[in-house]
Amino acid sequence: MDTTPLLDPKAFRAALGSFATGVTVITTRAADGTPVGLTANSFNSVSLDPPMVLWSLAKKSLSLPVFSASRHWAVHVLAAEQEALSGRFARSGEDKFSGLEIEAGLGGVPLLSGCAARFQCRSSFQHEGGDHLIFVGEVTAFDRAERAPLVFHAGQYALAAQRDPRLPQARSARVAGGLGEDLLGYLLGRAYFQFHLGVRDKAQAAGLTEVQWIVAAALTVRDGVTSADLDAALGYVLDVPVTPLLKAMQSSDWVHLDAAGHWRLTDSGRDRSLHLLAAAKAHEGDLLARFGYNEGALLKLQLQKFIAVTNPGLPDLWHEV
Amino acid sequence: MDTTPLLDPKAFRAALGSFATGVTVITTRAADGTPVGLTANSFNSVSLDPPMVLWSLAKKSLSLPVFSASRHWAVHVLAAEQEALSGRFARSGEDKFSGLEIEAGLGGVPLLSGCAARFQCRSSFQHEGGDHLIFVGEVTAFDRAERAPLVFHAGQYALAAQRDPRLPQARSARVAGGLGEDLLGYLLGRAYFQFHLGVRDKAQAAGLTEVQWIVAAALTVRDGVTSADLDAALGYVLDVPVTPLLKAMQSSDWVHLDAAGHWRLTDSGRDRSLHLLAAAKAHEGDLLARFGYNEGALLKLQLQKFIAVTNPGLPDLWHEV
Repeated sequence: MDTTPLLDPKAFRAALGSFATGVTVITTRAADGTPVGLTANSFNSVSLDPPMVLWSLAKKSLSLPVFSASRHWAVHVLAAEQEALSGRFARSGEDKFSGLEIEAGLGGVPLLSGCAARFQCRSSFQHEGGDHLIFVGEVTAFDRAERAPLVFHAGQYALAAQRDPRLPQARSARVAGGLGEDLLGYLLGRAYFQFHLGVRDKAQAAGLTEVQWIVAAALTVRDGVTSADLDAALGYVLDVPVTPLLKAMQSSDWVHLDAAGHWRLTDSGRDRSLHLLAAAKAHEGDLLARFGYNEGALLKLQLQKFIAVTNPGLPDLWHEV
Repeated sequence: MDTTPLLDPKAFRAALGSFATGVTVITTRAADGTPVGLTANSFNSVSLDPPMVLWSLAKKSLSLPVFSASRHWAVHVLAAEQEALSGRFARSGEDKFSGLEIEAGLGGVPLLSGCAARFQCRSSFQHEGGDHLIFVGEVTAFDRAERAPLVFHAGQYALAAQRDPRLPQARSARVAGGLGEDLLGYLLGRAYFQFHLGVRDKAQAAGLTEVQWIVAAALTVRDGVTSADLDAALGYVLDVPVTPLLKAMQSSDWVHLDAAGHWRLTDSGRDRSLHLLAAAKAHEGDLLARFGYNEGALLKLQLQKFIAVTNPGLPDLWHEV
């Protein structure tokens, strides 16, 4: 690590940003009744008895006079899906509360909904903190909901992935030199096949093998393609050419070949394919419900990043034709 | 959300826990020269000009007299891989610094290494905060390293998954009723196949189809099994029975059938399988290096959780025979 010369504000900001935080919106009501709110990540707990929390506000903030004069304010700990709310209250000069569902809290403080936690506070102290003022408040009421938190780190929004102590330890050490349970290829394969167990049964019941089901699903997105196009788009998934698959599907009225040499789903094939896709989505919904919403969102996010960085230049199935 | 009656300390603690934080270790040196340190997540930035940070300490903490009297202290923002260090400094009554690599900072304050950021501070103010004292310090030196942060949320350690604004938006809306790019099944499949592109080529060069390669990899872990055992263990991956695969592999000297009816890798087959596994691990290393260490750790963590919750009771490949 290189020691940075003092008072390089950009480097100092970057170093501060390496401390991850949640994101809060802090609200109060001005003497004239106007609701006031701003986004802050300088929140923290202070005391359990009495219950107290703190946050800090720039002395040059336009909201400083209102918060300094307020006897009450409320802290809203934002949930993962409230990124837009964070952005709205981080900007100035608009009616930040317009269109939001507001409750009136203690002292008339406007309360927002859908948060991970809310703390209604009575202002206790205002402490000196350089170019900021530190507000310490006593919590007079609070509530909480089981929601995944919005996280801020290194100047960007993030999601938190909890470590799960119930998970078995990876046992790759036990099989030295062999296939490890924590080898990414194994994990991807096992997750993929566990997901597809439920889908595969339904496809088989409809008379499709797994690879034929992939062809049918692709045709719901991009109908009317040549065998060569499909081979190019799906070659990385199927290790067999598509023509024999399509011919077998033709004999059971899933697809037909038009005069221009393009494969198309028949009406019946499209109908059956969309039913299978709906079943796959329902299956995904079931699994994600078991998994927890945020865990699913995180898994998808990581897979998207992985796909983006490891993409060897595969054609995009969804590319407009 | 249900409003919780005031002063239920357990519920209050849980509500506070919904605000995610980084984890810090704060150190100083006592007047007698003893290094002192503790884990805190009550850290936050306060001021940019002058550069100031704050944290709070329970008034009943045994370390309070030392920190109250110290003119200098340092804040270490822990990296994702420093969970053990967090645990060490959260416990009391042992020599927390023993065996650690220590540098001397300003005022003789002990500095730890391997952190995401460090702030060396001169104590500025000690403010009242209920059962805690709020320490505000002016930052006199700081450094930072590009390391993924350790996160604490809801009483557990977590990792932060940054949203990546460069990622294309999922386009499932465009293909209403069709296969969506953000369907988990698609993402898992595409990630799996992109991973295996590199491995599959090597397996094919060695004369194995993809499914035969899976059988060979499984035998490196658990050699000497019957076809029925392998069918049970691998049935969810292969949609074909293993016996014909094994017979084809037997003809190219990968496996042999012993007198007890157990399939075993030949010496040459084991050697070639281990070479392929080493190539797969190297391939994983290449991909993860492109991906970023923490991103890979996060992807694996999420996959492990997904596999655990969606496991339909599959036999464990690594189960001792």
